[in-house]
Amino acid sequence: MNIYEAAKKAREASIILQAVESDAKRKALESIKEALAAHQEAIFKANQVDIEVSEAQNVSMPVLKRLRFDKAKLQDVLDGIESLVHMEEPVGKVQMQTELDEGLILTRVSCPIGVIGVIFESRPDALVQISSLCLKSGNAVLLKGGSEAKETNKVLFEIIKKASEEAGMPEGWITLMETREEVSEILKMNKEIDLLIPRGSNEFVQYIMRNSDIPVMGHADGICHTYVDEHADLDLAVKVVTDSKTQYVSVCNALETLLVHEKVANDFLPRLKESLESKGATIKGCAKTRAIIECEEATEEDWQTEYLDYILSIKIVSSLEEAICHINTYGSGHTDCIVSTDEEAVQKFMMLVDSGNVFCNVSTRFSDGFRYGFGAEVGVSTSKIHARGSVGIEGLLIYKYKLLGHGHIVGDYASGVRKFTHKKLV
Amino acid sequence: MNIYEAAKKAREASIILQAVESDAKRKALESIKEALAAHQEAIFKANQVDIEVSEAQNVSMPVLKRLRFDKAKLQDVLDGIESLVHMEEPVGKVQMQTELDEGLILTRVSCPIGVIGVIFESRPDALVQISSLCLKSGNAVLLKGGSEAKETNKVLFEIIKKASEEAGMPEGWITLMETREEVSEILKMNKEIDLLIPRGSNEFVQYIMRNSDIPVMGHADGICHTYVDEHADLDLAVKVVTDSKTQYVSVCNALETLLVHEKVANDFLPRLKESLESKGATIKGCAKTRAIIECEEATEEDWQTEYLDYILSIKIVSSLEEAICHINTYGSGHTDCIVSTDEEAVQKFMMLVDSGNVFCNVSTRFSDGFRYGFGAEVGVSTSKIHARGSVGIEGLLIYKYKLLGHGHIVGDYASGVRKFTHKKLV
Repeated sequence: MNIYEAAKKAREASIILQAVESDAKRKALESIKEALAAHQEAIFKANQVDIEVSEAQNVSMPVLKRLRFDKAKLQDVLDGIESLVHMEEPVGKVQMQTELDEGLILTRVSCPIGVIGVIFESRPDALVQISSLCLKSGNAVLLKGGSEAKETNKVLFEIIKKASEEAGMPEGWITLMETREEVSEILKMNKEIDLLIPRGSNEFVQYIMRNSDIPVMGHADGICHTYVDEHADLDLAVKVVTDSKTQYVSVCNALETLLVHEKVANDFLPRLKESLESKGATIKGCAKTRAIIECEEATEEDWQTEYLDYILSIKIVSSLEEAICHINTYGSGHTDCIVSTDEEAVQKFMMLVDSGNVFCNVSTRFSDGFRYGFGAEVGVSTSKIHARGSVGIEGLLIYKYKLLGHGHIVGDYASGVRKFTHKKLV
Repeated sequence: MNIYEAAKKAREASIILQAVESDAKRKALESIKEALAAHQEAIFKANQVDIEVSEAQNVSMPVLKRLRFDKAKLQDVLDGIESLVHMEEPVGKVQMQTELDEGLILTRVSCPIGVIGVIFESRPDALVQISSLCLKSGNAVLLKGGSEAKETNKVLFEIIKKASEEAGMPEGWITLMETREEVSEILKMNKEIDLLIPRGSNEFVQYIMRNSDIPVMGHADGICHTYVDEHADLDLAVKVVTDSKTQYVSVCNALETLLVHEKVANDFLPRLKESLESKGATIKGCAKTRAIIECEEATEEDWQTEYLDYILSIKIVSSLEEAICHINTYGSGHTDCIVSTDEEAVQKFMMLVDSGNVFCNVSTRFSDGFRYGFGAEVGVSTSKIHARGSVGIEGLLIYKYKLLGHGHIVGDYASGVRKFTHKKLV
């Protein structure tokens, strides 16, 4: 079966999935969980092959770390599936109900989007997470994982497909793509695929957006800021900035640029420098910063750079407004934080910074589905429609309007014989 | 100011608009309302010019009808603005609130999308409706109206801009584009514009989707179906099918294809034919239909055609499943209806037909924001993300996550010193 046939099959499966009962989906998730546990040796063995290939190619430690699928990772994904088993049924929820007239009832109910194309990075646990989220939300899915995780993904996919289809899910609801050519192909299938979710580098997501007219829920990049206000608890500022920058540098919610109010810069920067250096991080600063602490020079390019490394760029600003303007100009709308004790400044910052996550007095590293308590995460969206920020299962749902009547016709309302009541019921 | 500068200005205005108080927006809407009423003669005069130009070019009656902006249309838009004045503030609504840990509170609040590009058809009243919806929802807007309504749009735009900016709305929050070149330009401005809403022909919407990587909330076409089930009240069926087809033929929610169960076709079709013919509508039928009633032949192409005319294509099917499959294959996901007294068939149809609006025993013509009680309508979306079906002010909103803490860092949770509580507050 080629990828076009697989996509058509996914569309057919998606129609059946719309109506699958909650209990049947629960049982299928439980079957997947049992099958993954039962076949763990096969999974670890395939993962060992992937790791050896990657090691032979001298891939970096962070990639190797993400690639590894061991007992602990398996337990994580099994726990994730378990939490989906217990999650309230997301499909068929009544979101709104209105009596348009006597006996004419309009109801808006949640429903699956349909067919989702997901292209994700090297973590094989993402395959399990995404496919179980799609199943719970009633969506068919076409998956493409990182080539480094090829063997692991193949085994995981086969286990999930077999277990779920044997448990009654429609054949073809899940497909694993194995080549880049298949990905190029699906970008053209706007009749078969309703939503693309690319996870990966910024360039990759941009490429998908430019090369497909299927809607994309993408994640641009994470140029996250923290602004230390003139009224700030500087001890707290040192603590949250250090955590934001150094707790895990290679992720999108790590801090990249720090903005410091000129009134506190003299006091704050030397203390911050000491703290950052103790964690192995270095600083690039604007001219005013370099007048206070010794560091490399930050240029215009630095304000637009996602380092994903132990580097922090620092700019001194003369007002809250300048900080907000800098963030809205150079930021990526991901996560931006103010450190301040001034209620009014906090309000203003959180209102005017146009980002999916706006924080106060905490680390930027909190913006994440797990920490938000969403259970599994579909991805992080820096798009401004449909879903924004950390996207949980909600991002895989849309709604439809159901209208039930008894022979009601529009002619009667046009002529004035009948009038709408528009009584809100839910 | 060229269109690029105008778009940058709109982005700046959109940031300010995020924080404009509810009362200030109400006052601006009231000012617009008063100014439109005060300058009605200038509006009617400009409209007269547009109408004369169109008449000289022999444009069709329906276009002329949509183009006309008279006292009645003015009253409609004034009523629309009045209803927005009284509408609950849509920005800043708390959609979700969770305590992540003691003193660490996550809140999801509704907010404007930012800058919206709207390209709409010949109705000048749409300009008023869309700009007031954007103002209420806190979005900046770049508008392009139909060239037939050029003079009317210009006058309306100037009145709205002046009245709202004098009432305190940020300068440049609204811009009127006057040329097609400007529209081509904005398609490339994905940094300045967050969402495009094209209203118009199917080809036009498709063109926008293919030529921009800005998200598009578009309306494909309306190939609407009604299925008359084997268990149907045939009197009711004649009534709703006639209304669906003939009440107003040139709109997207008019019926285009009728599916009839073979068990009731003999009884139903002659009665339907009589009713349709009394309204001037003609029928194109499949072979089985033509064995029962005299009519033109319907071919494969007819199932894919939006007539927008007094023509109905009819196909006889042998089961509910065949009807659902036909609709999901040939439909446009707009509005589809079942006529049946069989509860189970109704449930199945409404669950499995993958359309934004699924109806039972009523006219397809009900799918419309006004009839749904949404007040003003942004448009009708056949997209399956963000907003689907009739889109009210909700379609112009997204949300942001606000996290407030007191020096919380992720390191403490990673090391196990602290644990998340994830207590749902709202």
